[in-house]
Amino acid sequence: MSDRLAVVGKRLPRVDAVAKVRGEATFLPDIQLPGMLYAKFLRSPHSHARILKINTREAEKLPGVRAVLTHKNVPKVHPRHKLEYLLCETMHYAGDEVAAVAAETKEIAEEALRLIKVEYEVLAAVYDAEEAMKLDAPLVHPELGSNIYAKHPGCSPDGWLVIEIGDVSKGFTEADFIIENTYETPMQYTCSPMPRSVVCRWAGNKLTCWADTQVPQSVWYDLASCLGIPQSDVRLIVHCVGAYGAKEPEKTAVLTAILARRTGRPVKAEFTREEDFIASHRRLSYKIQGKIGVTKNGTITAVYNRAITNFGNDSLAPLRVLATSATKTFIMLYRSRNVKFEGCGVLTNTVQHSAMLGFGDPEANLCMERLMDEAAERVGMDPVAFRLNNCLRYGDQAYERDRLLAAQDPRWGIVGADIDMQECIRKAVETSGWNSKWRGWTTPMNINGAKRQGIGMAIGIHHCMYREYSAVVRMNQDGTANVLSGAVEIGQGCATIMVQVVAETLGLRYEDVSATMADTASTPLGHGNVGSEGTSSAVTAAKYAANDARQKLLEIAARELGVAAEDLDIKDRMIFVIGQPEKKIPVAAACAKGFQVIGVGLNPHANTIKDEKTGEILQHYAVAAVVVEVEVDTETGELNVLRVSSANDCGRAINPTNVENQIDLGIIMGNGWIRSENFVIDQSTGVMLNPNLLDYKLMTILDIPRPDDIKKSILELPSAWGAYGAKGFSETAMVAVAPAIANAVYNAIGVRIRGEHFTPERILEALGKL
Amino acid sequence: MSDRLAVVGKRLPRVDAVAKVRGEATFLPDIQLPGMLYAKFLRSPHSHARILKINTREAEKLPGVRAVLTHKNVPKVHPRHKLEYLLCETMHYAGDEVAAVAAETKEIAEEALRLIKVEYEVLAAVYDAEEAMKLDAPLVHPELGSNIYAKHPGCSPDGWLVIEIGDVSKGFTEADFIIENTYETPMQYTCSPMPRSVVCRWAGNKLTCWADTQVPQSVWYDLASCLGIPQSDVRLIVHCVGAYGAKEPEKTAVLTAILARRTGRPVKAEFTREEDFIASHRRLSYKIQGKIGVTKNGTITAVYNRAITNFGNDSLAPLRVLATSATKTFIMLYRSRNVKFEGCGVLTNTVQHSAMLGFGDPEANLCMERLMDEAAERVGMDPVAFRLNNCLRYGDQAYERDRLLAAQDPRWGIVGADIDMQECIRKAVETSGWNSKWRGWTTPMNINGAKRQGIGMAIGIHHCMYREYSAVVRMNQDGTANVLSGAVEIGQGCATIMVQVVAETLGLRYEDVSATMADTASTPLGHGNVGSEGTSSAVTAAKYAANDARQKLLEIAARELGVAAEDLDIKDRMIFVIGQPEKKIPVAAACAKGFQVIGVGLNPHANTIKDEKTGEILQHYAVAAVVVEVEVDTETGELNVLRVSSANDCGRAINPTNVENQIDLGIIMGNGWIRSENFVIDQSTGVMLNPNLLDYKLMTILDIPRPDDIKKSILELPSAWGAYGAKGFSETAMVAVAPAIANAVYNAIGVRIRGEHFTPERILEALGKL
Repeated sequence: MSDRLAVVGKRLPRVDAVAKVRGEATFLPDIQLPGMLYAKFLRSPHSHARILKINTREAEKLPGVRAVLTHKNVPKVHPRHKLEYLLCETMHYAGDEVAAVAAETKEIAEEALRLIKVEYEVLAAVYDAEEAMKLDAPLVHPELGSNIYAKHPGCSPDGWLVIEIGDVSKGFTEADFIIENTYETPMQYTCSPMPRSVVCRWAGNKLTCWADTQVPQSVWYDLASCLGIPQSDVRLIVHCVGAYGAKEPEKTAVLTAILARRTGRPVKAEFTREEDFIASHRRLSYKIQGKIGVTKNGTITAVYNRAITNFGNDSLAPLRVLATSATKTFIMLYRSRNVKFEGCGVLTNTVQHSAMLGFGDPEANLCMERLMDEAAERVGMDPVAFRLNNCLRYGDQAYERDRLLAAQDPRWGIVGADIDMQECIRKAVETSGWNSKWRGWTTPMNINGAKRQGIGMAIGIHHCMYREYSAVVRMNQDGTANVLSGAVEIGQGCATIMVQVVAETLGLRYEDVSATMADTASTPLGHGNVGSEGTSSAVTAAKYAANDARQKLLEIAARELGVAAEDLDIKDRMIFVIGQPEKKIPVAAACAKGFQVIGVGLNPHANTIKDEKTGEILQHYAVAAVVVEVEVDTETGELNVLRVSSANDCGRAINPTNVENQIDLGIIMGNGWIRSENFVIDQSTGVMLNPNLLDYKLMTILDIPRPDDIKKSILELPSAWGAYGAKGFSETAMVAVAPAIANAVYNAIGVRIRGEHFTPERILEALGKL
Repeated sequence: MSDRLAVVGKRLPRVDAVAKVRGEATFLPDIQLPGMLYAKFLRSPHSHARILKINTREAEKLPGVRAVLTHKNVPKVHPRHKLEYLLCETMHYAGDEVAAVAAETKEIAEEALRLIKVEYEVLAAVYDAEEAMKLDAPLVHPELGSNIYAKHPGCSPDGWLVIEIGDVSKGFTEADFIIENTYETPMQYTCSPMPRSVVCRWAGNKLTCWADTQVPQSVWYDLASCLGIPQSDVRLIVHCVGAYGAKEPEKTAVLTAILARRTGRPVKAEFTREEDFIASHRRLSYKIQGKIGVTKNGTITAVYNRAITNFGNDSLAPLRVLATSATKTFIMLYRSRNVKFEGCGVLTNTVQHSAMLGFGDPEANLCMERLMDEAAERVGMDPVAFRLNNCLRYGDQAYERDRLLAAQDPRWGIVGADIDMQECIRKAVETSGWNSKWRGWTTPMNINGAKRQGIGMAIGIHHCMYREYSAVVRMNQDGTANVLSGAVEIGQGCATIMVQVVAETLGLRYEDVSATMADTASTPLGHGNVGSEGTSSAVTAAKYAANDARQKLLEIAARELGVAAEDLDIKDRMIFVIGQPEKKIPVAAACAKGFQVIGVGLNPHANTIKDEKTGEILQHYAVAAVVVEVEVDTETGELNVLRVSSANDCGRAINPTNVENQIDLGIIMGNGWIRSENFVIDQSTGVMLNPNLLDYKLMTILDIPRPDDIKKSILELPSAWGAYGAKGFSETAMVAVAPAIANAVYNAIGVRIRGEHFTPERILEALGKL
């Protein structure tokens, strides 16, 4: 579909590829400033404790120590969405910050930590969400009165969010079968290539902070508000973040800024890998009770879904998105008119959760797509036919939008029309060869001694918001352009996509455009790179800025050529009269004529696609269907994933290679999440037992199918609003992977596993062999 | 006149003061990058020579050497306005780059320079401009066919620029007296606090260059064009430049970028102070033959002025400004209707000239204001009366503009009307107590043994162009603002002035605004900080960007308050209805409502105030009158400056303290220039003999009058176009200082000195004692 496009839709190498491959890109740990000190944090060994006494005298006397911060000498302020002050008297999880030290070397700072004497009163703690909901459970934050977090907009006073669409009771009475089960999804560590780090330097009253974050605007806001200075005095620079989510703001940046202020020196804080495990952010874990009503002929009549989420020691706002994504996802994915969701988020004395690839959607989907498989089996339809029968299809009205947008412009009501789940399913079925492999619910695909091969599928959907983003496009005198955006390149390819879209819009070549991103001294504001919003929000804003610059260039050229701007087009650096290509001037000449062409663009949807009543920002959706083939060794319990076929509608693949990279990521992370990445918290102490890359089992290249055995299909059903029809996509690719593995395992061994990891032990247990 | 202004006109501390005083500001030599190499340059010992052989093998073999560049392995390209390639076979001055080395340490790089073996053919050379004009003189650039540089627009083919207004011959026939003399003005070293430096780092195909320049756009252009890459791939960052001019582009940045590319490492080049003396840029030296016709009653009938300028080994375009500033200045300063100028710039085998505080105006003025003093004496008028009688006065038509702008909008024709030289003279006369001190031309003010005290005066004018500048103002969510400009803070206070103007325009406080300057990855283009254009051009663009942002804020507030935007004003962070101040919303609230407010501004005069025929950008003028009292010891020849009274019209003093700082600078540099700063070039070898701060005599705090003895007056006659009426000012303060000293010395000792420095030796020589 990109025939008429010169840059968009092309498999161009990433703008940052060469620099990163050569090791020339500057990651935060590469920053070395003259006179720089190193910060280290003393962390609580207890998951819940009160500091009775803290003595820092010996640490302060250690030569080379320049500052020691504790709750006694740090302002009682906290970042915007944090429940607690920067440093507290009470520790809420094993890893919580007790004190911070700045010293001439990392080694001295570490030595100083050992010299800080702390006397704790150990308090009762709770780690499991359901335990924490009990009336007699220890309270993580006693001042809240409950561990069920009740501060989300729309929550009941006791912290439950209840959404019902249609009439679920009636729906269940219309069902011939009711299928009900409870599922659990595990925590997961993001394991970004670079543990969290930050560097702060003051010059006069101005702070420069290089931070490792995907939400610079929030960190910027927190620094200014916690330090009590104007945002214009804080320069936050983000470059080369590696992240799959979880690089949300926390206290480190502010504490490092205070250390730098107190010492008059630049200060760097760099987490060890262990700190990054225990004291950054993790994926939410869910316990979901799901219930589906189905008629004999395989039509869903009702869906009920009760989700309990383990937040950890703090909440991350806005959480309505999260708490409701289970339902939202489900509403958009299937056609059922009767849907009810009840959910809550529970505080525990564990490390805090954060947005991480998918943020709610993979978790909800891992539960519901397993239940859906059970429902299909119950009515005796194969999993493909059952889903084709029930899934939302092209042109459907989106029920949620019906409700929310009834009073608004009718074109918002047909958002569902840009989803074609059926086509995705057909594509995954086709590329996987499903029809020749599927032998029925309880018949494995192949049996070879103790080894049984199964095939399974799942579908998935991911919401993507239209967030506040603006952009500036500056034309240079040689006809090239720079695009300025507050977005962050976190490895997802946002800079590349942005450059392609701007180059396409301006009629330039890919190499003519550079992106300047996430520097609060110069780039426009952006909401942050969360929820796959880079493309839908930041790139869309850049498109509008490029439109503005393009229009200005055309007006300049129109004066030069004596025609109207509407009669002009731009292609390959040349502005020409449509139909008279010999009448032309180079873009560079127009730039030189019009000192200076600056285009400004907002994402025009950010302010318009909102629910007038709730103020909630609405969304679009990208979908995926995944077929997985597995082999289970019924003697050892070993699970091997043989082949994956993933079909994905991303609206428009601005860069197909980039989309495929995201599909790979989703497959790898989905595999690790359900198969091996066990985030082990000792249930008696709350201490994480495997905070290292030896004991925390990431998938390696040997654990996933070979490239030839991964079939990636891209479907393009353009979004009405995204740049060139693109949807926010990156997280979508993960959503259906884990449930497809689970369903394939059932096909192989004939036993459903509803708990957390599909480890050899659990498989053998399911087979009754342990 | 600033009664109704809250921020403009206030004596606010500079935005960069605290950081600089505390040593927290990052100057270029403070930049340390991991893996950084150090560059050193082998420089020619000969002022004119050809490289016969160059052998770098030994240097390349030295451990730690990573790259050696010579004319043999460097592309044959040159920066935009340079006559020669990056590295040449021919050396054009003693100090010219022969080779460049990058090594692990500075010491290794220096050692490597010693190991490079060069065999030169020494060529005949010429250092004096008049010598170089002789037909048999050695040619600095033989391919040009002459040492008289003939490439300026408007020059005759033989390189002379001739301008005649009125009828000079007739004017001289109408004169009762004709006064004629020849004067010389010396070279001068800028001695910026930091010698030239540059750091280059590549990441993939993108170059980041931290450069020490006042014209980032030119350096940016040169890097891209010499390296053959798009401007969008070059990020040029300028911060904390200290400069009084002369930080113009040269080859160092490009050579350092090539070294970085070849080695795959960041490279820093840092000139030693000696290199900065011999191989950067210097003030032009002039030889001016001046001739004035005057009637008995003291009216000037004609002025003739023939200027020969020593360019050094290269020319700096555009040079018409320079070549004509002698005339222009003079035309604008006095009312004579008959003026003729003939001038040329001559290439010699000396270090290249560059713009330096005043760029042509102090040089022309140092000659002509001495001649004017002689004319006044000849007709028997005191120097004040003579100047008051002849100087351009408020409301006068500017003759030059009459000529150039006749066919244009008549309001451009009255540019001269915003100059009030008479008022400046009166102010300087008043604050100096001239009337009680002046005892006549040959009567010293005081005699005390061998010590004679004299009083003298001079007036001066400096042109300031309206150049291409644009700016962006970005509002932040807390109601603060960042202004983005391509301008450079070179110590002149440009950032402070810009912040004041933006804060005033937006109704914010001074501390609410930060300036982001000169980073080609993000800031809008700017012509460069030359010709006192920071205020007239860059700040004016910022004002228009702030106007744009203000209008957008008012429109948002108008919607909120239900009124028209025209009915609103902003004061102290609050937008309110005029006449109903209780109806208001904070700027921060308007910012939060209007995601995101970005104002874009161009300096609207940059494209409009141009001569249609020549394309030359036109100018405004700031003026100064200076009275100086000196004491000369007629036995030792020692010259002491006792008191200075300087009165200056800067249009509007955005920050009076800043204006006074500029006046101090003008006084210090004007003193050093005429009294002690002897740039000694050996006339037999072309080698500079005193390239160090011991032998090159800068003025110290002990050599200039004490603060109480410097009277600084600021007059404010608003410019029609500058932000809040401000004119470009900084260079103006120097223009009249040196001639006032010269004239006071005459009053003290009764002998006119027309040569270069007023050293004890020259004074004793003038007194016939040597």
